[in-house]
Amino acid sequence: LRKQEISVDTLTEGIFKGDKAMLAKAITLLESTQPTHFEKANAVVEKCLSRPVESIRLGITGVPGVGKSSFIETLGTTLTALGKKVAVLAVDPSSSLSKGSILGDKTRMQALSNDPNAFIRPSPSGSSLGGVAQKTRESIMLCEAAGYDVVLVETVGVGQSEIAVHSMVDFFLLLKLSGAGDELQGIKRGIMEMADAIAINKADGSNVEKAKLAVTEFQRALHLYPPKQNGWIPKVMKCSASENTGVREIWDMVEDFARQNKENGFFEKNRKNQNKNWFLQTVDDHLKQFFHQKPAFIKVQNELLKEIEQNKVSPFYAAKLLLDKITKEL
Amino acid sequence: LRKQEISVDTLTEGIFKGDKAMLAKAITLLESTQPTHFEKANAVVEKCLSRPVESIRLGITGVPGVGKSSFIETLGTTLTALGKKVAVLAVDPSSSLSKGSILGDKTRMQALSNDPNAFIRPSPSGSSLGGVAQKTRESIMLCEAAGYDVVLVETVGVGQSEIAVHSMVDFFLLLKLSGAGDELQGIKRGIMEMADAIAINKADGSNVEKAKLAVTEFQRALHLYPPKQNGWIPKVMKCSASENTGVREIWDMVEDFARQNKENGFFEKNRKNQNKNWFLQTVDDHLKQFFHQKPAFIKVQNELLKEIEQNKVSPFYAAKLLLDKITKEL
Repeated sequence: LRKQEISVDTLTEGIFKGDKAMLAKAITLLESTQPTHFEKANAVVEKCLSRPVESIRLGITGVPGVGKSSFIETLGTTLTALGKKVAVLAVDPSSSLSKGSILGDKTRMQALSNDPNAFIRPSPSGSSLGGVAQKTRESIMLCEAAGYDVVLVETVGVGQSEIAVHSMVDFFLLLKLSGAGDELQGIKRGIMEMADAIAINKADGSNVEKAKLAVTEFQRALHLYPPKQNGWIPKVMKCSASENTGVREIWDMVEDFARQNKENGFFEKNRKNQNKNWFLQTVDDHLKQFFHQKPAFIKVQNELLKEIEQNKVSPFYAAKLLLDKITKEL
Repeated sequence: LRKQEISVDTLTEGIFKGDKAMLAKAITLLESTQPTHFEKANAVVEKCLSRPVESIRLGITGVPGVGKSSFIETLGTTLTALGKKVAVLAVDPSSSLSKGSILGDKTRMQALSNDPNAFIRPSPSGSSLGGVAQKTRESIMLCEAAGYDVVLVETVGVGQSEIAVHSMVDFFLLLKLSGAGDELQGIKRGIMEMADAIAINKADGSNVEKAKLAVTEFQRALHLYPPKQNGWIPKVMKCSASENTGVREIWDMVEDFARQNKENGFFEKNRKNQNKNWFLQTVDDHLKQFFHQKPAFIKVQNELLKEIEQNKVSPFYAAKLLLDKITKEL
C-alpha cells in the first residue's frame, strides 16, 4: 500500500496546511483494521490534538426522506459563503451491511462537494456502532486540525446512533417533516429529549401552513420535557433546504447557542464530559485489541471455538474458561 | 434486596419447574449491574444450559406502527392454543433513554400476558446494544430451560438491533405495511437481506388489494438478493393480526423452514455459528468487566479523568497512558 509509505510527519503537516488529500488519507488510516495503520493513525491524532481550533460541532439527525442531504448542502454552502470551512462526517452503523446508505453518494451534495472550503466524508463501516462512533470522533479532531471550524455530523433517525452522535457534538439538531404523522413520536422520545432544536424541513409551497402548525405542535411537545441544565430552551423552526429559506436563521440560532453556552461555561463543561467518555471508550477498545493480538489468547480462543463447534462446551462456560486462564496469568 | 437471598439452586429448580416468578427473578439478576448478582446469574445460566430444550427462536422486526405488538399477541395466542409455551423478549436499545418503548406496556398484549403458557419480558435497558443483546441471548436460554419451546424476540425496525437479533434466532421475520412508500427501502436493504420472510400486516378491509400488490412487489425485490446458503427462498405473505388471518399460515411456514433446515443440517450449523459469536462477545464483555473491577485500574483511570477535566491531557493520550500502565503489569 502506498499509504503506508507516507510518514506521520508528512500526514500531520499536510493536515495542518489544510491539504484535503492528506486529511482523507489520515482518516483512511484511522478506519483501517491493520495494527500498523492503527499505530500510525494514533500518532497523527495525537499530534493533531496539540493544535486546538475554535470550532462548532453540529449533529444532524432525521429519518430517511426528511431531506438531510439537501439541508446539509444548503447549510454548508451558506457557511462557506460566510468564510467558514465546513467538514461533513456521518455515523451510520447500518452502512456496514448496506454500504454507504448516507453520504455514500457525493452527487447528493454536488455544490458542497465541489466547494474548496468543504470536506465530505461518508460513514466509516465497522462491525459495531461503538467502533464507527469512535472513528468519527477522531476524524472530527483531524478535520479541526485541518482548519475546519464547523463540523457537521449526520446520522440516521433511529436509536443508538443518535446517542453516539449526541455524545460528540455541541449542538444537536433534529430534522422533521410536517404532517408526517406522530406515530413515530413514542419511539423518538429519547431523540426529542436530546434535541437542542427541531427544524421542520420542506416548509415550501403548499407545505408552509402545515409546517407552521408543526412548529406550534413541537413547541408544545418540547415544553413537556424537563429544562436543560445549561438553561437552553430548545427551539423549533421551519426551513426549506431546496428554496434556501430559514437555513441561515437556523445557523444564527446555533451561534446564539454557542455564545450563550460559552458565557455560562456549559460549552466547555460539555466538551470536557464528552472527552471523559471518549477516554473511557478508547480504553475499552484498546483493552480488547490488546488481548486479541496476544498469541496465547488467540490459541486458547481457537481451541474453545473448536469445542463449541463439537458441542463439547457451552459458549457461556467456554468464555469463563478463557477468562480464568488469561486472568490467572496476570 | 430480597432477591439476593434466593439461592442459585432455588432459582434453577424454579426455572426447571416452569415457575414464571423464578424465571423473572433470574432474568432480573442477569440484567443487574451488581457484580454479586452477575455471578449468581452466571451460575444459573450455566445450570440452565445443561438442560437443552427443542425450541424455535423467531426474530420479529418492523418499524413502529407496523403492528408488531398485535402480531405477537395473535401469533402467541395461536401458539399456546396449539399447546406450545411461548416466551416474548425484546431488544430495544433506544429504551435505555426512553424507558421501555417496546413491550414496556403489557396492556398492548392483554390476552397473551394473561395466558399461563406465555411469558413476556420487556427489553433490558443498557448502555450499549451489545450489552442489551447479550442479556437477551442469556434470557433466551433461561426461558428454554423453563420449557418455553417458542421464543419470540421483538426489535425495532432500523439498524444494528436487527443484526443483533438476527444473530440469536433461527428465523427472522420482517413485518411491513402495504403502500407505506418505499423511500425507506435504501436504508433497509441490509434488513431485507437478513429476512427469511416478509409479512405484509394489516391486510384487511380496503387494504387487502394493496397488500396483494405489496406481496408481488416484495417477491420481485427479494429475487434480486443472492440465494441463501441454506437453500431457503425467502417468502412473502400477508396477514391481519387484528382479524387473525394469515398468522397461522406464517407459523406453518416457520415450521416448514425448521423442518427443512434440520434435514439439511443448516439449523444446527446456524446455532453453532451463533454460539461461537456468543462466546466471542461474552469474552469481550468479561474482559472489560475484569479490568473495571481492579482497584489499580480504577485508581489510574480516576486520576486521568481528573487530568482530562483540567485539560492537562487529551482523552486519546490518556487512554494510551492507562493501557501502557496496565499492560506493562501483565
